[in-house]
Amino acid sequence: MSSRVFGDIAEHPEGSWFESRLELSHAGVHRQSQAGITGSPTHGAESIVLSGGYEDDKDEGSLIIYTGHGGRDPETRQQVSDQLLAGGNLALAHSCTHGLPVRVIRGASHKSPYSPPAGYRYDGLYRVETYWRDTGKSGHTIWRFRLIKIVRHMSQSARVTETREPYVPAPRQEMNVVRIVRDTQQARLVKTLYDYHCQVCDIRLEGSAGPYVEAAHIRPLGTPHNGPDSLDNLLCLCPNHHVLFDFGGFAIADDLSLLGIDGKLIVSPEHVISLVYVRYHRAHYYKGI
Amino acid sequence: MSSRVFGDIAEHPEGSWFESRLELSHAGVHRQSQAGITGSPTHGAESIVLSGGYEDDKDEGSLIIYTGHGGRDPETRQQVSDQLLAGGNLALAHSCTHGLPVRVIRGASHKSPYSPPAGYRYDGLYRVETYWRDTGKSGHTIWRFRLIKIVRHMSQSARVTETREPYVPAPRQEMNVVRIVRDTQQARLVKTLYDYHCQVCDIRLEGSAGPYVEAAHIRPLGTPHNGPDSLDNLLCLCPNHHVLFDFGGFAIADDLSLLGIDGKLIVSPEHVISLVYVRYHRAHYYKGI
Repeated sequence: MSSRVFGDIAEHPEGSWFESRLELSHAGVHRQSQAGITGSPTHGAESIVLSGGYEDDKDEGSLIIYTGHGGRDPETRQQVSDQLLAGGNLALAHSCTHGLPVRVIRGASHKSPYSPPAGYRYDGLYRVETYWRDTGKSGHTIWRFRLIKIVRHMSQSARVTETREPYVPAPRQEMNVVRIVRDTQQARLVKTLYDYHCQVCDIRLEGSAGPYVEAAHIRPLGTPHNGPDSLDNLLCLCPNHHVLFDFGGFAIADDLSLLGIDGKLIVSPEHVISLVYVRYHRAHYYKGI
Repeated sequence: MSSRVFGDIAEHPEGSWFESRLELSHAGVHRQSQAGITGSPTHGAESIVLSGGYEDDKDEGSLIIYTGHGGRDPETRQQVSDQLLAGGNLALAHSCTHGLPVRVIRGASHKSPYSPPAGYRYDGLYRVETYWRDTGKSGHTIWRFRLIKIVRHMSQSARVTETREPYVPAPRQEMNVVRIVRDTQQARLVKTLYDYHCQVCDIRLEGSAGPYVEAAHIRPLGTPHNGPDSLDNLLCLCPNHHVLFDFGGFAIADDLSLLGIDGKLIVSPEHVISLVYVRYHRAHYYKGI
């Protein structure tokens, strides 16, 4: 078996077609000949195969909601027990927190307008934007991953893997996106309300241009969570607690005490936080469940 | 004078042309009739005009290195004293730390192949990716800003201002990019060396998929700094200290003690940090100088 590569396999550019899983494996594009995920929990996932195995997958082309592996009956292919954040699932989560690119291969049996008519096609590099726990159609716990296609640029050679925006001049270094911190209309409101102090640790970071803090959505924006951009769904957090919150390091109990770390959320009397969103985050993101 | 708008002015889309500064001002596209920067230090910069006023500006179209204002002789237009991070300069820095879009207008007198042949043209929205202190050609301190053009998409209406990557499905919320955290080839090395502990505060953040830490370049990558992606130019920092380091909240002295905050950098015996890069960061980023 060939060695671990994150990014393109030089001899097999995006669009390459393969007749079988064995051929894919020999090419090094997806080394595992059976599992949907190739990778290691400590190094990250190199590649995934979409082959219609999971009833909860979603494929919009450049956006994929991918279901992790485990807990299925090998005969019926139905989900019969809970999935764990382990093995290939943990490998994909590691790729998320380290910004590593994942090769995506679509098989003909994958139910999507983007699938090839036969065999398998290597469809390029994706980054794992976020991951969370969910309850599948079966009623069992599944782990889900939002994958976003990495846009290529003319000048990129086969092994360059940066998620570059089209307007950034060519760097000499390989770069991957780990996190994109965005701000919304309501962000200023929550930042002002707490005067740039973190609601968890009360820290206020002072840069040369003034204070810095981040607005965190409790129930995330975007597919498939579709949380609102409203004050009752926002927290004012320092970057450390924002990262921890997004990656499941802590959550908030119904009495606003913290789970996973000590303390209690600092809440302004003017800030009504929706427990519906707090529970959504806890159910889908918190590692302690 | 019209009111403060961050983003497009509905009646004047990108590409709109104006005969004079007065016309620009009446249109609300650049409200100040003389200054190059319209904005407030506490709310951010709404717009800038590139009019060839500064000898240190750089214009590559979608990437602009913009020099702040102040310190020039009104007669000769030469830099005669140091610029301060105040007024419009501070407004632009605020736009950086808050991810706010800035309208860019090019004037005919701006020396660039992207300038209009006459008058002024509104050239769309940019985000302020980073800001730093520099010594201008004159020998005086100037403040510089790296502006990156925000890519538009068909479906975006006039007031939608998100820096969207082309593959992200249309959100219902307005969003701006505050920070993009990237990882490089050498990042894993420095993270492993410190076992995901911050070199400033020793914290190790634990998410559901394992530890999270960021690799920070001391002398930044990219134009015009062009720092290398090498271990002697890297630090292993928690997100809070990464933000503070990038936004000038602290720096490192030659003896590796910290400036601006208490303590001393934790350094592994296997990690040789280049003082050349440490001094570069101190000179260009640290607020305390």
